[in-house]
Amino acid sequence: MRQVLLIDCADQKGLVAKISAELFNRGVNITSNREFVDPVTRHFFMRTEFEGEFSDGDIVQAMKALLAPGARVRLASPGKKRLVILGTKEPHCLGDILIRCAYNALNATIEAVVCNHDTLGSLVEKFGVPFHFVDHRNTDRAAHAEAIREVVERYSPDYLVLAKYMRILPPEFVSRYPNRIINIHHSFLPAFVGASPYKQAYERGVKIIGATAHFVNADLDQGPIIGQDVIPVNHRYTARDMASAGRDVEKIVLAKALSLVVDDCVFVSGNKTVVFD
Amino acid sequence: MRQVLLIDCADQKGLVAKISAELFNRGVNITSNREFVDPVTRHFFMRTEFEGEFSDGDIVQAMKALLAPGARVRLASPGKKRLVILGTKEPHCLGDILIRCAYNALNATIEAVVCNHDTLGSLVEKFGVPFHFVDHRNTDRAAHAEAIREVVERYSPDYLVLAKYMRILPPEFVSRYPNRIINIHHSFLPAFVGASPYKQAYERGVKIIGATAHFVNADLDQGPIIGQDVIPVNHRYTARDMASAGRDVEKIVLAKALSLVVDDCVFVSGNKTVVFD
Amino acid sequence: MRQVLLIDCADQKGLVAKISAELFNRGVNITSNREFVDPVTRHFFMRTEFEGEFSDGDIVQAMKALLAPGARVRLASPGKKRLVILGTKEPHCLGDILIRCAYNALNATIEAVVCNHDTLGSLVEKFGVPFHFVDHRNTDRAAHAEAIREVVERYSPDYLVLAKYMRILPPEFVSRYPNRIINIHHSFLPAFVGASPYKQAYERGVKIIGATAHFVNADLDQGPIIGQDVIPVNHRYTARDMASAGRDVEKIVLAKALSLVVDDCVFVSGNKTVVFD
Amino acid sequence: MRQVLLIDCADQKGLVAKISAELFNRGVNITSNREFVDPVTRHFFMRTEFEGEFSDGDIVQAMKALLAPGARVRLASPGKKRLVILGTKEPHCLGDILIRCAYNALNATIEAVVCNHDTLGSLVEKFGVPFHFVDHRNTDRAAHAEAIREVVERYSPDYLVLAKYMRILPPEFVSRYPNRIINIHHSFLPAFVGASPYKQAYERGVKIIGATAHFVNADLDQGPIIGQDVIPVNHRYTARDMASAGRDVEKIVLAKALSLVVDDCVFVSGNKTVVFD
Repeated sequence: MRQVLLIDCADQKGLVAKISAELFNRGVNITSNREFVDPVTRHFFMRTEFEGEFSDGDIVQAMKALLAPGARVRLASPGKKRLVILGTKEPHCLGDILIRCAYNALNATIEAVVCNHDTLGSLVEKFGVPFHFVDHRNTDRAAHAEAIREVVERYSPDYLVLAKYMRILPPEFVSRYPNRIINIHHSFLPAFVGASPYKQAYERGVKIIGATAHFVNADLDQGPIIGQDVIPVNHRYTARDMASAGRDVEKIVLAKALSLVVDDCVFVSGNKTVVFD
Repeated sequence: MRQVLLIDCADQKGLVAKISAELFNRGVNITSNREFVDPVTRHFFMRTEFEGEFSDGDIVQAMKALLAPGARVRLASPGKKRLVILGTKEPHCLGDILIRCAYNALNATIEAVVCNHDTLGSLVEKFGVPFHFVDHRNTDRAAHAEAIREVVERYSPDYLVLAKYMRILPPEFVSRYPNRIINIHHSFLPAFVGASPYKQAYERGVKIIGATAHFVNADLDQGPIIGQDVIPVNHRYTARDMASAGRDVEKIVLAKALSLVVDDCVFVSGNKTVVFD
Repeated sequence: MRQVLLIDCADQKGLVAKISAELFNRGVNITSNREFVDPVTRHFFMRTEFEGEFSDGDIVQAMKALLAPGARVRLASPGKKRLVILGTKEPHCLGDILIRCAYNALNATIEAVVCNHDTLGSLVEKFGVPFHFVDHRNTDRAAHAEAIREVVERYSPDYLVLAKYMRILPPEFVSRYPNRIINIHHSFLPAFVGASPYKQAYERGVKIIGATAHFVNADLDQGPIIGQDVIPVNHRYTARDMASAGRDVEKIVLAKALSLVVDDCVFVSGNKTVVFD
Repeated sequence: MRQVLLIDCADQKGLVAKISAELFNRGVNITSNREFVDPVTRHFFMRTEFEGEFSDGDIVQAMKALLAPGARVRLASPGKKRLVILGTKEPHCLGDILIRCAYNALNATIEAVVCNHDTLGSLVEKFGVPFHFVDHRNTDRAAHAEAIREVVERYSPDYLVLAKYMRILPPEFVSRYPNRIINIHHSFLPAFVGASPYKQAYERGVKIIGATAHFVNADLDQGPIIGQDVIPVNHRYTARDMASAGRDVEKIVLAKALSLVVDDCVFVSGNKTVVFD
């Protein structure tokens, strides 16, 4: 069975030697090993794929015993990750993920889709996925977020995916899922934070537009960036044309970021990510 | 002789018919024609390359007579454009332009290079181009800009090129050269305006960095964008690595923007550009 | 009503003047005009979007009367284009087009999907689109193509789309739909023509892979290219990883090419295309 | 002192553990470690940057003693690499490398430039670099290559760089510098091998052009690819425009490949490369 071991801790001399000796001695076969030491923070990150069973005891405990206190050691769950997707009205990101999951092109299952409009219900139901319409009208932000949370928790997701979910989630909500909410922002962050980035891009007259997938934290559009991509535009593009062209980038950037996250290739490091792609 | 006619004016029905009939009737041969009507401002832009002499009188006057008052009509000067380049210490953009001009890869001549450090003098002099070191120490911003201006004006340049010139030019200086100063900013504007964009990019943890060539106006880093490009980076890049990788984008983006400007392919339209590339 | 007029003919002096005068005199309002003269073949291409009714008679006849014999003049049908999609087993391109058409992100309707395997039937039927499984086993190539043709013709499509259709269509089939069959080839043509391009790419050790959308003609993988795009790969990519990463490029390149074709932005010019994007 | 250790050998269980333990025990400080096991050939590649002196004996011998016979172990020379550049008439790649080396933007020195035309002599001499014009007229291919070789050997270069050298080097020449000759080919290989790739690209009507940096081996344009990049083109590009636009890609791709090679980031693996960028 293929497994993934994830370690991050303060760097010290001989870490790779120590960790790899331990794995070797317990008889597993390393098929891929990636590591990185941040030269500024002196923090060490390691992602190891191995085959075979760890012959003697619990691997996480064995590793922690080797490392200084404070080291984070995690054995990734080997199966598909459970996703709940939040959306609003736009189908392109959601549709793309639905098809990927339906055809095993993403190591994940969509447990449910939760939207603040009912527009996307018919699409979701085509794929046999539960759809929840949680109306945001006639309720305040906190109550709406609480209603969302209540639905989400029924599914015990590994990750929440904001697939063009156009509302801001309050900090109390966000803090429940640290580094487990992935958003696609429809601009090349940090350009054009906030609302209507394509309108902003049009008005600024940029020649390239982009999209950014990031983890969500308490500061809007400020979370650790997982991936970004761009496409060229020109003076013939209206704001609407930019939005239309941008959708292709959004869905590909989100899908690629999701793929990296569910394959356990992404570490969060302060407000940044270490991505072993 | 190949010539370029540039027209921009408020749009009205039948403009293309009117203009092209006039050109046809005077016997010139249109080899390339590009036009654009901004759907928001209803402003019309046209760039026409033609061969042959306009048979009857002055083409600019003839066109103005056809068009509503306020139309801008310009016959581009057919020869090489005269550039003065401003720099500081970094050689990559300057060196790239020097070689292009030396080998006719840019429709321009470098009349002089003016720097606030003397670092680049030996490079410039290799190419037989006048170099002026205008020290900014022991003088205030206005006096330094005035000293630069005094040198620049000796050469009557068509365009000033800020090839990593690391000082801010005061508005009085800028206003003397409307849409005639081209800057390369070492970020993907509007992300990371101001100083140390690579440091900012590093701290934000972006996955793509870029460069922006733009006309300079009174607002720092806010002028009309001519061109932009980007390259991917990752967690292994330090701020210094980003700066190093970014230099290649900077020089290519600046050179491409310059090429479009000196070939008369760029209109300024409010705070944007129309680029017939 | 917005309409699109498409003209291509041998170039001659004054063509733009002549055509635009005719349009102006008949009272239509040109909203966008794009033209191109191939400097080698001296062939002229013009795409004009206009609003309003042509006040006097048939516009195509009026234009033909203006132009030399042999000119092609076409008024694009204003509604959605009718597509029939051919597929085999892979869902990514097909799924992407299904969602675009379902949400009006492509100016087209999918009339039917025809496959030589039944794998994709359940996906197609989710979207209420007729699915035809035309088995290629126990039949020869000509008979299979004839069976496909028979199904296709029931739907009178404007265009056939080969969305990863993995069989070669015989010349007799292709010749029935000149410049009306669009294929996505999973490589950056002309690199890696023929079968298993990702395997070829892997074996050659390329650092970039790509996809090509092209019109199909009698020579396999040799038809006029509409669009291409690429993504970087590295030594860690197996042939299978390349295929997986390539799927995202394939679907975006195909969708973009289709969008240009159904919006009447593409002329075929010998073995090339003129694309007014 | 920062050093780079390069190991490649048949993979076996515990290699990373063994190698990193040895380094740890001898007291050096690993600052960066990259490894890769080719899943098809089961070959192991490792690049380790470390600081400090290996405390006990010769590191290469120590490592070889650890590893199976046939392992290649190499300690990269720590200083600048010595380059000899071969060119013909085009200045863009050569000029770019001259400026980089003059300003320490490449970890290399240019020992000499050797050309089969004298066009570039004045450029080279500006930078105080020896220039050798080795005329190919009135001599046969073998004699010309021998004359080149004779000049090259005076400088004992680490690498030869073909910076748009437009002649084919005979196999006897190439075999003297295995994996030490770097060429820039002006197409996106394997598309358009051989002569006039831009003309070929123009005739095929591609929508993207590119450049490829590769090691030279006995088969023309077939050597291991180090890096590639592309830029979009369209129907308005003539073959000449493509060549002109392509020059920017060529020089950037070559410079980036050179940078990776002189920083000891590139392993050759059969007909491919492993690039730790």
